[in-house]
Amino acid sequence: MIILSNMEIIHTFFNPKSVAVIGASKNPRKGGNRIVQNLIKNNYKGKIYLVNPNSEGEIFGLKFYKSVLEIEDEVDIAIFYVGNTLIPRILKECIQKGIKGAIIESSGFEEVGIRGLELKKEIIEITDNFSKIRIVGPNCLGLTKIDGDSDSDKKGGFFTGFAVFDKYKRGNIAVISQSGTLNGGYLRHQMEEHPETGFRYSCAIGNKMDLDETYFLEYFLEDPTVNVIAMYLESFKHPRKFIELCRTANKMANKTIVLVKGGLTELGQKATLSHTGSLAENSKLIKAIIKQSGVIQAHNFHELFQFARTFSMMYNTKKKLPKIGNVSTITGSGGFGTILADLTKFYGLNFPDLGEKAYKALEAIYPEWMPPNRFALLDIWPAIEKSLSKKKVGGDVIKDCYDIVVSEPKIEGIFINMFCAGGENSMWNIDRIMKSTIMSPKPVYVNLIGDIQEIHRVSHLLSKSNIPNFSNLEEMVKNFSILLQESRNKSREY
Amino acid sequence: MIILSNMEIIHTFFNPKSVAVIGASKNPRKGGNRIVQNLIKNNYKGKIYLVNPNSEGEIFGLKFYKSVLEIEDEVDIAIFYVGNTLIPRILKECIQKGIKGAIIESSGFEEVGIRGLELKKEIIEITDNFSKIRIVGPNCLGLTKIDGDSDSDKKGGFFTGFAVFDKYKRGNIAVISQSGTLNGGYLRHQMEEHPETGFRYSCAIGNKMDLDETYFLEYFLEDPTVNVIAMYLESFKHPRKFIELCRTANKMANKTIVLVKGGLTELGQKATLSHTGSLAENSKLIKAIIKQSGVIQAHNFHELFQFARTFSMMYNTKKKLPKIGNVSTITGSGGFGTILADLTKFYGLNFPDLGEKAYKALEAIYPEWMPPNRFALLDIWPAIEKSLSKKKVGGDVIKDCYDIVVSEPKIEGIFINMFCAGGENSMWNIDRIMKSTIMSPKPVYVNLIGDIQEIHRVSHLLSKSNIPNFSNLEEMVKNFSILLQESRNKSREY
Repeated sequence: MIILSNMEIIHTFFNPKSVAVIGASKNPRKGGNRIVQNLIKNNYKGKIYLVNPNSEGEIFGLKFYKSVLEIEDEVDIAIFYVGNTLIPRILKECIQKGIKGAIIESSGFEEVGIRGLELKKEIIEITDNFSKIRIVGPNCLGLTKIDGDSDSDKKGGFFTGFAVFDKYKRGNIAVISQSGTLNGGYLRHQMEEHPETGFRYSCAIGNKMDLDETYFLEYFLEDPTVNVIAMYLESFKHPRKFIELCRTANKMANKTIVLVKGGLTELGQKATLSHTGSLAENSKLIKAIIKQSGVIQAHNFHELFQFARTFSMMYNTKKKLPKIGNVSTITGSGGFGTILADLTKFYGLNFPDLGEKAYKALEAIYPEWMPPNRFALLDIWPAIEKSLSKKKVGGDVIKDCYDIVVSEPKIEGIFINMFCAGGENSMWNIDRIMKSTIMSPKPVYVNLIGDIQEIHRVSHLLSKSNIPNFSNLEEMVKNFSILLQESRNKSREY
Repeated sequence: MIILSNMEIIHTFFNPKSVAVIGASKNPRKGGNRIVQNLIKNNYKGKIYLVNPNSEGEIFGLKFYKSVLEIEDEVDIAIFYVGNTLIPRILKECIQKGIKGAIIESSGFEEVGIRGLELKKEIIEITDNFSKIRIVGPNCLGLTKIDGDSDSDKKGGFFTGFAVFDKYKRGNIAVISQSGTLNGGYLRHQMEEHPETGFRYSCAIGNKMDLDETYFLEYFLEDPTVNVIAMYLESFKHPRKFIELCRTANKMANKTIVLVKGGLTELGQKATLSHTGSLAENSKLIKAIIKQSGVIQAHNFHELFQFARTFSMMYNTKKKLPKIGNVSTITGSGGFGTILADLTKFYGLNFPDLGEKAYKALEAIYPEWMPPNRFALLDIWPAIEKSLSKKKVGGDVIKDCYDIVVSEPKIEGIFINMFCAGGENSMWNIDRIMKSTIMSPKPVYVNLIGDIQEIHRVSHLLSKSNIPNFSNLEEMVKNFSILLQESRNKSREY
């Protein structure tokens, strides 16, 4: 038996030359059928063997085997979708066959109490404490690796879950999660709502009986195609190793980890017990681990994906992280400016006073009766009114103001409020602003309000250019504040 | 001169028999034209007079007058959309004409500094401290009153702003705001995104030179068609009166006030000065006013409208406010259950232990290998698996679980996680759950995840039945927690 390194183990799980689907089914509504669909429709390049002693004939042109032992060729990975009690016997056969890894999607282990714990004990014995075969799961939605966009000729990758994916984009985000809903329905929802966001991996680690978050995390730190690791954990299996890996990530210029920890409260921990069998952890200990690891903490799934998207865009465009949190805003609405100012303070950012050069330049654009603010909050309405009286285009004024604040050395980032009006032209000169934004190393965030169809159109345009955009002021500010937090994480001394 | 009571003043502003649009314009891109459009398209029942000495001919079949003094009939309200410096002279003419109120939408007053303050002083003199004519604004988007849905034969009301409304529903929410963006673009955005939510009034009070939030608030407390008052304020003009009115609202079973206060921070206050000319207020004082008034505080415009919608639905369906915050959840996802449990605790709610009767009933539905939790978090997956093996429909199980928790006396509200899958039937038996939900006095909140089109379909179905629904767990929990907060406000002793 060849002992694989951690990196080799995970590499094998993501790049098997052949897989056996244990529990493959003819019924398209059953998970054992959907796993096969997911592999085939998404162009898995290796060989697929269907194993089910109760099935005859073929599906997708593939025949059924009674047991893995009947398969003539080598098999790298077995994917299990069978009743929990059948697993020990089949695992034995897998070991006999020389299969290196098993993805066990079936549930019914730690989370169901004593009977599940007994099954686990049995598996530990059979596998000689996971030395004879490595296990992902159980109680999970499998592994996903995306090699090419679903609408390209490089479509596909390795999709092993029983939730079938059909629309996706390859990108720089890797997901590690103890909730199948997150790897399945929620991820699909994200891909549909934000089709410009690309993912590279999605790992459902379930009860993590053997392989846990640290194996995958370590692998993703080494993989240059991954910039953002978005995690949902119900427990820390190896807290020390977890902290160490997160600190390693902080020393790397191209990695950010976002974490939702479930079970922060006693009530939440009661819930994890019946979900992934995670035992209660001391709340103070959890807080200490999160603090020491220096990850970006999110508090729900929505936030997790939003933060991941924010960092994904940042890495895609190589923006500079803010060091102080000095921002500016360009808005046509005083009310927004006010709320934005309050939120900016709440989230540890600031509108600094403008330098003399920037102020003078703005003064020339603003009317005498309403000079610009001394601080970096630009309510551009008076400037637009002045321009209109000179028969200039409003968009020019905005672009001029934008150019002034973007070149102000004090300013590290810009918030823009964009009013999207369908039917007429949107107030903002989107194309030109986008061009400058892409050229600038400073992150520019946009808040979109107005007619919904036009918001969707503009949002897709911005997202395609990796310009973070929101329809919620607080989310915009919060998603900027995590850049500052990450900048501090990255300059921490350990 | 007849002195009107506060109630009569506001009544006249919302129900004038005739209006003069000062600054009416032939150019459809100008505000002075859009105000007329807004009145006419939305079936204002009174007479409209256009005033503009520089315009000839007609628009919308109405002729132009050189001055209000030329109008033969009585005029109740004048709507101003002219340059700030012209206002004093025209106001004098309005007073001479016996016009009772002016809605001044023009800007250029306190917010522009000394020159604006001088104008204000002049207006105070001309109006004899607002005794000769009452003023809404300046620097505002006017008043809106909705009498009938835009798609009904009762379409319309009184729309005076320069943002034209075309799709709306009459409902029980009144908006009072110092940000025109909120009364205009943002409100239109809300109406488009949540077409089931109805509004009754929208008041843009701008710099509130004369009439302030307390006049409108007092009026809405008396108006039985209003249940929810959503406010955005940059200053409290009469803090004592404000607190008093809010406390009165708390003593009423059919009123809730939601407030966003802009300028909570020093930076925010710097912003308000250049917006509505609101002077800096002491942060501690602001906090004390908000606390003493017992309003529901929101922190951004998105939250303001969401909270308003939540209470609007609650009043529409006469749901019972929770007293303790004991909730239950029905979910097919353990990960969601865990995050929900954490959020529930964070927001001061709890999943209590189930009573013996409820637990026994659930035990019969769940499989032996995975009994239900003792506390009110129902991961219904095992129960569905059991039902499937008995060839029962999953929806029946969910409905059975739902009926059990809804009749558990300890439970004051229910969170449901609904997976919306397009193409196939959604997992949940929406119709039947909706029917029970409507019958029950307990608030039921739904979180929707899955395919976006199906989410939209289900969301509209739920919203039509006034069932609060979200696609964000934290927003769902937060919007339930404000019911508990309001219940405590309403039982406060002063």
